[in-house]
Amino acid sequence: MGVPGSDERQETVADIGEFGLIGRVTAGRRQPATTLLGPGDDAAIVAASDGRVVTSTDVLVEGVHFRMDWSTPEHVGRKAVAVNIADIAAMGGVPTGLLVGLACPRTTPTAVAEGLAAGMWEEATRAGAGLVGGDVVAADQIVISVTALGDLQGRAPVTRGGAMPGDVVAVSGRLGWSAAGLAVLGRGFRSPVTVVSAYRAPEPPYAAGPQAALAGATAMIDVSDGLLADLAHVAEASSVAIDVRTSLVPVPQRLVEVASALGADALHWVLTGGEDHALAATFPDPAGVPQGWVAVGTVGRGAGVTVDGRQYEKPPGWQHWR
Amino acid sequence: MGVPGSDERQETVADIGEFGLIGRVTAGRRQPATTLLGPGDDAAIVAASDGRVVTSTDVLVEGVHFRMDWSTPEHVGRKAVAVNIADIAAMGGVPTGLLVGLACPRTTPTAVAEGLAAGMWEEATRAGAGLVGGDVVAADQIVISVTALGDLQGRAPVTRGGAMPGDVVAVSGRLGWSAAGLAVLGRGFRSPVTVVSAYRAPEPPYAAGPQAALAGATAMIDVSDGLLADLAHVAEASSVAIDVRTSLVPVPQRLVEVASALGADALHWVLTGGEDHALAATFPDPAGVPQGWVAVGTVGRGAGVTVDGRQYEKPPGWQHWR
Repeated sequence: MGVPGSDERQETVADIGEFGLIGRVTAGRRQPATTLLGPGDDAAIVAASDGRVVTSTDVLVEGVHFRMDWSTPEHVGRKAVAVNIADIAAMGGVPTGLLVGLACPRTTPTAVAEGLAAGMWEEATRAGAGLVGGDVVAADQIVISVTALGDLQGRAPVTRGGAMPGDVVAVSGRLGWSAAGLAVLGRGFRSPVTVVSAYRAPEPPYAAGPQAALAGATAMIDVSDGLLADLAHVAEASSVAIDVRTSLVPVPQRLVEVASALGADALHWVLTGGEDHALAATFPDPAGVPQGWVAVGTVGRGAGVTVDGRQYEKPPGWQHWR
Repeated sequence: MGVPGSDERQETVADIGEFGLIGRVTAGRRQPATTLLGPGDDAAIVAASDGRVVTSTDVLVEGVHFRMDWSTPEHVGRKAVAVNIADIAAMGGVPTGLLVGLACPRTTPTAVAEGLAAGMWEEATRAGAGLVGGDVVAADQIVISVTALGDLQGRAPVTRGGAMPGDVVAVSGRLGWSAAGLAVLGRGFRSPVTVVSAYRAPEPPYAAGPQAALAGATAMIDVSDGLLADLAHVAEASSVAIDVRTSLVPVPQRLVEVASALGADALHWVLTGGEDHALAATFPDPAGVPQGWVAVGTVGRGAGVTVDGRQYEKPPGWQHWR
């Protein structure tokens, strides 16, 4: 007999408890060789052969950084991990381990939490890192905090502060795709799937980070807030001016089509769209820009970022609270 | 003229923005020598001379792990850091760096965020670690995720899994104080201040972790959920039985007095109260229990935790979702 409809009630995280959930999402997962001690003890232990560890934390909040009606839990999990590993890559490091702090309502279906974890494992595995630890707690909305650890493999880190006048500015990875996907979803559409997928989970060019470091990049940044906004951080940290040449900036045909359908500007998405987590770097020599990177501008004396020598007219990025 | 009352409006985090807040809470702070690159770039770099890094994440949620009407922002900041460093200590490590993910409402007064950061710096400095990075985002409630990094200084980690029959069980640090403080606050009182302070911010015996490792501890754990609950984790991971002797367990006179005033049981607080972040460890030889540690029980063959040879009657701890 039972309560009417009780057959269809989904199991929630409250049903299986904190330890039950942790057990489920860690069981049977394979850790890379760098995970010297994985989940289950007070702390994890990760190899840091270099003698230094590169580390970054990013927090994603439901309703702010993702919407569960626009993305599957797997997408959100992939994104939470990707944005962090991109930060490791932007220093020239390779990711080794990830820790996840998950706050979610007691009523969250277990399937959602398992989906988040599956997406995290998928992205971590793609990047060669392990999910080594974390914490799961109750909260009013889903908040995912990921900390990534990485290794510099004996190289000097590539900071934001080393760009020099005369350097060339280059990018690796997608620009504007996530912004296009967000615009599509915001109008109530679900396609084209290429741009919608790009919004749901970025595909940062992880290997391009160490590659740029080896090629002698003088500065590097993860493009999370938009190309112009993030190049402004490089310009400020390096005390230089950066000029972006729109004739060099690749604007994919797909984005032009989507922009045309929505009455938007594809170049604007490429210049200011965040969340694709491309990498932008500066190199001393145009001939030394590594394969897969595209030169889009130059470094000069002065301050700030210009586009074709002029101030860019539209707002160059976004801040969470503005 | 202005809007009536506008003089008294507190500045919020939305007023100064994400970068403004990060600038304020990091400006002028001194990093330890292990912080090779601090906040401000894509990722931080922390020394890991040992070639391994010990790392742990804990998440604190407003209304679940703390209440802003029971604690000051400084207390909450100290607690968020302390619970994480205790995990590093419980492996026998010394803390090096901390990353903080802070989610909070746009309406959060800047003073609250600055108070949280001040508490974090205070506790980090006490433990010798640096606040090396983090992220600040908007959310509906305050969620603080802290990741701690630590160094094993060439020693083997002390896991939960190494306890052997014949070992002695010992504890270092306070037990039951936070539970007593919570009971006091729950009844609407604000004193005695010793127990209330213990609830607001724990004082884990960080140095006792490496000390125990050097003394040959076979297993160790951070007492976050209560002595019996956490010893149960050691018993399970080590496939042993643990018996706690109440005659050996120190029950401070202060707790006896508070318990008496509230009609509560001080020994129960000591055995089951969490959040003091004492350390519990097992040692092969009673004579080898280091100074500052108190032997409270023994390891035997079998499974589970007993008190004076019997099952403990009351619920041995808590889980967030149960």
